[in-house]
Amino acid sequence: MSILVVGSVALDSVETPFGKADGVLGGSAVFFSAAASLLAPVQVVGVVGEDYPIEELRSSMNGRVDLSGLMTAPGESFRWSGVYSYDLNSRETLETRLGVFADFRPRIPANFRNARHVFLGNIDPRLQMEVLDQVEAPELVVCDTMNFWIEGSRDALLELLTRVDFLLVNDSEARQLAGEPNLLQAARWIQARGPRMVAIKKGEHGAILFVEDRVFFVPGYPLEEVFDPTGAGDAFAGGLLGYLASAGTTTLEDLRLATVFGSALGSFAVEDFSIRRFADLGPDEIRQRVQEFREMTTFEYGLSAAPQG
Amino acid sequence: MSILVVGSVALDSVETPFGKADGVLGGSAVFFSAAASLLAPVQVVGVVGEDYPIEELRSSMNGRVDLSGLMTAPGESFRWSGVYSYDLNSRETLETRLGVFADFRPRIPANFRNARHVFLGNIDPRLQMEVLDQVEAPELVVCDTMNFWIEGSRDALLELLTRVDFLLVNDSEARQLAGEPNLLQAARWIQARGPRMVAIKKGEHGAILFVEDRVFFVPGYPLEEVFDPTGAGDAFAGGLLGYLASAGTTTLEDLRLATVFGSALGSFAVEDFSIRRFADLGPDEIRQRVQEFREMTTFEYGLSAAPQG
Repeated sequence: MSILVVGSVALDSVETPFGKADGVLGGSAVFFSAAASLLAPVQVVGVVGEDYPIEELRSSMNGRVDLSGLMTAPGESFRWSGVYSYDLNSRETLETRLGVFADFRPRIPANFRNARHVFLGNIDPRLQMEVLDQVEAPELVVCDTMNFWIEGSRDALLELLTRVDFLLVNDSEARQLAGEPNLLQAARWIQARGPRMVAIKKGEHGAILFVEDRVFFVPGYPLEEVFDPTGAGDAFAGGLLGYLASAGTTTLEDLRLATVFGSALGSFAVEDFSIRRFADLGPDEIRQRVQEFREMTTFEYGLSAAPQG
Repeated sequence: MSILVVGSVALDSVETPFGKADGVLGGSAVFFSAAASLLAPVQVVGVVGEDYPIEELRSSMNGRVDLSGLMTAPGESFRWSGVYSYDLNSRETLETRLGVFADFRPRIPANFRNARHVFLGNIDPRLQMEVLDQVEAPELVVCDTMNFWIEGSRDALLELLTRVDFLLVNDSEARQLAGEPNLLQAARWIQARGPRMVAIKKGEHGAILFVEDRVFFVPGYPLEEVFDPTGAGDAFAGGLLGYLASAGTTTLEDLRLATVFGSALGSFAVEDFSIRRFADLGPDEIRQRVQEFREMTTFEYGLSAAPQG
């Protein structure tokens, strides 16, 4: 079953302690698609300028992504450039040029409208609602957002949340949205506004999944070197929804495993610039990493065991 | 088998967003003992002034802690006071009065010297070495330290590490000690200096256990309210070593479960001021919490499963 993704399609210029990449494939829809398409077919809706290397994008996705919803508009593509601190825990945006993305209004092609799985990348919540107005009967709507919309478009975001099944946010966004420093209480606050499921992304500290009153933790994958953190959150979303679309069900067990797949794909994303790490990533390598997550978190305990003291 | 702990025995004055406690039982040896003694017998070596409420300490431990190594010296007990920020992620020390602790030289009583399990609480690494000089043939030496010693007593600390089996540090201390921002590499650096095992404590983000080349994660327990974070690290150490002393073995599986016990006892510590939460904590409640850690981290995955994509 195809996943519909609506988000930014951009050209990134990134500098990290490990090197530089200039004008490379980026944007939420691109990172999401590169990850999700390894698990399920993906349909992209977005806009690029006439300068965008669409053929490079197409070939990077190995034909697993339907780009027929990607419009080309007169003007420049969305460009972002930034530089990361030495420990990669913070970054400075050097420049954001919205280009044709400034006037983006998502138009979902007729043959995409029956999508069962929808990912609303991090764009204006009013546009995210316009996407939902155009899809027929999605089974699972997964949504990303950011501090910019939490501060500036709070009412629209809260209205959107009533139509969202699964919200993905990072820890500071969750706290800001709920006005609550305790993450558990912040997640409950969000769940009370609509989403049955919330995943809170904590970067190197992993992710927490909240499903109704259940809590599930996935650690950050311990990489010797993080090369470029850009896009990790969207690749996480891609792995998560890619797994759920592939499974076709959303039992608690599916949702847990989906969060691990998200963490696995996110961990691959940061191993190279742009979406390069996904180019030759095969199913065996993904399975192997998911298995490593299992080994890093599993312990045996019977209720009859210690303490004896 | 008894655990020998050497560390501070103090009186704390703490202010958090949830309340204040003035002159309550505190110090690394006290938090450690309160937690560890729920799992195994504990022997304490430390010093207090004539003002210390030893009978209150004794009764708080329900007779499970041998206090015969606690010396009383003329003068005031070690007193610490601090105030926590609204989200409890940072704290300001208002006052530290070392009192009799300034001249502390650990003297291990003859009947404690055959201890198999030793916890070196966070004191001067030269004193930690003096402890090791006095014990006969410990099977497992677990050690805590802090930025103060990493900066000011680096050579002594590095010499100590060659005699330590298991180092406990928080993430910023691990990075500082190794001069390396990547935690995985920092842990490897520490392991190369002596300790076969390293546990890196990350507060609300949980803990990471490194055993030789294996990595194991435990999340932070999701509390609705953290009442007072003081002593969480020492209670973690107490749960960890308490479990290992109770098990009597240190297989990889024991070490993983010990880290979960540490996280469980640490999570209880923060639910009330001082060591109050341990007063009526029974084995069932501890087992139940360890079981919750298991439920929060377990997922099923067969290598033959998805991705199908």
